[in-house]
Amino acid sequence: MYACLYEGKVLLNKKIDSVAIIGVGLLGGSVGLALRSGGFTGRITGIGRRKSTLDKALESQAIDLASLDPQEGVRDAGLIILATPIGMFEQMLQSISQNLRPGCLVTDVGSTKRLVVNLAGKLLPKNTHFVGAHPIAGSEKRGPEYARADLYDGALCILTPTAATDADALDTVTTFWQTLGMRVRTMTPAAHDRLLAQVSHLPHMMAAALVNSVPQKALTSAGTGFLDTTRIASGDPQLWHDIGSSNADYLAKELERMETHLARLRQAIQNNDSKAIRRILQQAKEKRDWLVRYKVEHKELPS
Amino acid sequence: MYACLYEGKVLLNKKIDSVAIIGVGLLGGSVGLALRSGGFTGRITGIGRRKSTLDKALESQAIDLASLDPQEGVRDAGLIILATPIGMFEQMLQSISQNLRPGCLVTDVGSTKRLVVNLAGKLLPKNTHFVGAHPIAGSEKRGPEYARADLYDGALCILTPTAATDADALDTVTTFWQTLGMRVRTMTPAAHDRLLAQVSHLPHMMAAALVNSVPQKALTSAGTGFLDTTRIASGDPQLWHDIGSSNADYLAKELERMETHLARLRQAIQNNDSKAIRRILQQAKEKRDWLVRYKVEHKELPS
Repeated sequence: MYACLYEGKVLLNKKIDSVAIIGVGLLGGSVGLALRSGGFTGRITGIGRRKSTLDKALESQAIDLASLDPQEGVRDAGLIILATPIGMFEQMLQSISQNLRPGCLVTDVGSTKRLVVNLAGKLLPKNTHFVGAHPIAGSEKRGPEYARADLYDGALCILTPTAATDADALDTVTTFWQTLGMRVRTMTPAAHDRLLAQVSHLPHMMAAALVNSVPQKALTSAGTGFLDTTRIASGDPQLWHDIGSSNADYLAKELERMETHLARLRQAIQNNDSKAIRRILQQAKEKRDWLVRYKVEHKELPS
Repeated sequence: MYACLYEGKVLLNKKIDSVAIIGVGLLGGSVGLALRSGGFTGRITGIGRRKSTLDKALESQAIDLASLDPQEGVRDAGLIILATPIGMFEQMLQSISQNLRPGCLVTDVGSTKRLVVNLAGKLLPKNTHFVGAHPIAGSEKRGPEYARADLYDGALCILTPTAATDADALDTVTTFWQTLGMRVRTMTPAAHDRLLAQVSHLPHMMAAALVNSVPQKALTSAGTGFLDTTRIASGDPQLWHDIGSSNADYLAKELERMETHLARLRQAIQNNDSKAIRRILQQAKEKRDWLVRYKVEHKELPS
């Protein structure tokens, strides 16, 4: 394991001498910190829209150099990580596409993948390589002050190569995310978006709808159950808007399925159908208990 | 505050010399431990159906005496706490009603209140006093091994007296729950059941429906967001069946409202109505952030 990681670092340092991170908030800042603590010896340039954010990233040593100009910032980079909100991807890819080093690699941290893979295919020059990535890590917090070197450690990163993806580029980008401590899986952009609609985007929309559904004056009596169930509803509305609207088809399907399950449970309660209520609650308990055991066995949760 | 608590203990010890707890699991066991650590000097009898459970409660000193026979166990008690699942309340009230000490007080820990208040009114003798209570504390864990002296400390206890409730009985039962460290509020049984349908029963049903709605093979990719959102779905199905079916009318109304909110969000996503998506997510974030601030200000959450 250590030998493998060590080889990864050597490989990454051999292949990549300069990295540019576009967007140095929680995710981008943590990429810089993790890359450095993972043994990367090349240059790390941070690109952002606000000087104050870049200054914080410089201060925490998440980046070595800062630039307010994407075209300028990416010029020498062998690997570029797109870590802005999804809604800025199109504009950003357009802006950097004129100034990329031939052969350079581009990856991202976006929570949906069909949109960015399509955009990169259309907007990036043919002599560069895009490999879509979704490192599944983060929190409802935002900003470089929350960035941590261990944010990605042990977490899952889904890569979404297509038939057009260069095999060497996929190899190097895989090594890159592994250097940050991540377990890498690959699937198609569509498979990713459907999967994430189920385990991430649906729960978010549920939490938001639940908060909105409960009258404000009742809320003060809410306990830890309600707070846990709705924690993710405190996430950034713009960011989740971008996720929802770039995955609208799959997400709508999952919301429809959820509405069916909810209506079925309501009908069982209205009809005082004890057998059905028990069956539904029992199934949910068994499934979730199974999930917790799975996560403990795979060391994704403490035992 | 301390003086007040001290007076409470003196008062309780003066008025009550013997307590019986029916059901010595997480909630009942914690009542025993908290009562003792709160300074109660009288006798605490535990009543249960299984010798092994009673033995654990004796061992942890949650109770002084144990009985497998409810009629026998409540005979000398000045205060009885009904801490079985709601589904056993009717049978239990019937069973003890012949053997109660005249003037004795009965309270409970049930998560819905209309049912038990009605049952107590019908089944308990006129020379005894029932004051419904819902101490809002606990976890998805069950059994006396999880009982803690501080389970109730600082948490909210809702008492549900009616026009028929004796004022002295209400006073003493209030003092009892305060001795356990609880903040006491009173409301009607119906107001309680509507409130809890909103902040507790609805979230539970939502969490269960969410777990059931997501395909099992997708679950292994779920992260902390999904796990938090569904934590309460690991609760005991029988217990939550009892809660749901004893609060069916209010709960069904809340589920209907939730379905409306969910459908509205789905439609906004399907119609790519960015303004509506943003408004819904923004409203949820602001409401939840407000709730967290409220809980921190009222010291119900760490700052």
